[in-house]
This record gives sequence, C-alpha cells and structure tokens, in this order.
Amino acid sequence: MNYHATISQFSKMLHNMSAILDKAANSAVERNFEVGVLLQSRLAPDQFNFLRQVQITCDTAKSCAASLSGKEAPVHPDTEQTLSELKQRIDKTVTYLNTFQAKDFDGATERKISRPRWEGKVMRGEDFVLQHAIPNFFFHFTTAYSILRHNGVKIGKKDYLGELSFQKVTI
Amino acid sequence: MNYHATISQFSKMLHNMSAILDKAANSAVERNFEVGVLLQSRLAPDQFNFLRQVQITCDTAKSCAASLSGKEAPVHPDTEQTLSELKQRIDKTVTYLNTFQAKDFDGATERKISRPRWEGKVMRGEDFVLQHAIPNFFFHFTTAYSILRHNGVKIGKKDYLGELSFQKVTI
Repeated sequence: MNYHATISQFSKMLHNMSAILDKAANSAVERNFEVGVLLQSRLAPDQFNFLRQVQITCDTAKSCAASLSGKEAPVHPDTEQTLSELKQRIDKTVTYLNTFQAKDFDGATERKISRPRWEGKVMRGEDFVLQHAIPNFFFHFTTAYSILRHNGVKIGKKDYLGELSFQKVTI
Repeated sequence: MNYHATISQFSKMLHNMSAILDKAANSAVERNFEVGVLLQSRLAPDQFNFLRQVQITCDTAKSCAASLSGKEAPVHPDTEQTLSELKQRIDKTVTYLNTFQAKDFDGATERKISRPRWEGKVMRGEDFVLQHAIPNFFFHFTTAYSILRHNGVKIGKKDYLGELSFQKVTI
C-alpha cells in the first residue's frame, strides 16, 4: 500500500469537508436559520449528529496516520459547538496529517494495530487501512454530507471529491 | 498500492451490502410495506434513489478492477427493478471481482486511466484508485446505507464493515 498517499488523500478530503462546511454556513444565511440547526441534524434518531460525524471523520484519519507510523496521536477533545470550531478541528487534523512523510510508514504493512474496544486483538497495518480506516473515514464523511444534502444544502459530488490529479498530456 | 487487496475489499463490502439488502427486505415484511418503497427512496429529491446507489457502487468496483488491469469490464445493464434482481447484480459483480489475481494488476500504478466524461484526460492508476474509485465506492455504499437508516431499517456499522481480519495471537 502507498500509506503516505492514502493519508494525503484523507488530508485532501478533509480540506473538501471544510469547504462543504462553508457551503452549509452560506446556506443557513440564505435560508435564514442558525447553522447550528445543521450541526445538530441527523438522519435517524439513533445516529450521531452532523457535528459528531465530522469529529469522527477527523479522528479516523488522525489515528490511522498515527497507528501506521507507530506514533502517539495528539488528543483533540470533542468540545466543538460551533461551525467555526468544527472547521478549526478539521484544520488541526489536516496540519497533523501533513507532518507525515513517506518514510514514516516504513514497516506499516506488518505493524500490529489495535484499538481499545478490540479487547487486545490486533490487525496487520495493511488490513487495518483497507478494512477499517478507509471504510470508516468515507462512511462518516459521506454521512455528514448526506445530512446536509437531506437538509437542502446545495452540494454535489464534486464538492466531496475535490479536484482530480489529471496528468498533463504531452503532444 | 496493493490493488488486489483493494479489489478484494470492494468484494467483501459488496457481500456486506447484499446482507444489508436482506435486512431491508425483512424490515419491509415486519413493518408491512413493499420493499420496493425502499428501493425507490432517496434523501433528497435531486439525488439518485437507493436502487441506483447500489448499481453505481457495483459499477465503481467493477470498472476500477477492469481499468487497473487493462481489461474490458462486462456490461451490466441497469435494468434491475426488484430487490432480488439487485442482489443478483451484486452477485455478478462479486463473481467478476473474484476472478482477479494479484498479477493482473502488474503495472497498475502508472497505467493511464480515463473515463468517457473526462474528455480525453487521464489519471495515473494509483491516483485513480485513491482519488476516484475508493471515495466513489464508499460514497455510494454509504448513501445507500443512509437511505435505509433514515427509513428505519435496523442496521449498524458492523453490517457495513463486516468481519475484520484480526490476527491470531500466539502465546
């Protein structure tokens, strides 16, 4: 696996998420309601709200980078209550992800990774990325996105994907 | 990148999706409505419905495997109308994905990949997987999942992730 490129992609997607938050804020202004309504929204009563989905998306990326490189992740308390604070949480995460270099992930494929709720069980680094980190990261981002779409915020796939790295074609 | 493991993960997730469809069917029986209502549901009026989200999830995995290996993907027409047909669509996709072996992806990293709507532009294989295939696959799967959650189908994160490959710890 190209772990560094995977973490860079998380960073890029979080940048996209921050821009989507701006669109949510603008939508609230245009439609004359407090953006906090969106932050507290959810698609089912027993589902995490938008704010929590964003926090988990950030933490999934942060702890993935830390675990794969054998580092201790910085603690980001879940204290955000406003859209501005939530954007700062994303910024902090992106800043942390951007500190990583390719060599930090040497040996990541076979590194043993665990989580407190796994009761001592471990996964290989590569399995962890493919089966846990990537599916969870996109799950929580997409759920946050869906909460906004369901509430009429005008966003589309391009806001989610961001710019694609097309190759320059030489003639 | 470990392209074969990535495609295997898509296959696993589609297997999970098929099991989620069974839960949707059971939920409809228990609550006494036609499951077709769920297939036609969406979270916003200008969003694809559940049925289409599943089709796109399948096609994203199928075309990713084909593109990375330089093969022609089989055509799966979007003709499904029932849950049973939709499960067959998933089965066909999983069967196709499972034909791939690691050596099929030799050279995938630098393979030039394009899409009809890209107007001749190309991406490197590795960029394509990280920036396009993976985000899209999980986007459409999670959106399908969210449509069911929003409509009261009792599913959770474990249904989405499936079983994780924990390592056997030797004493």
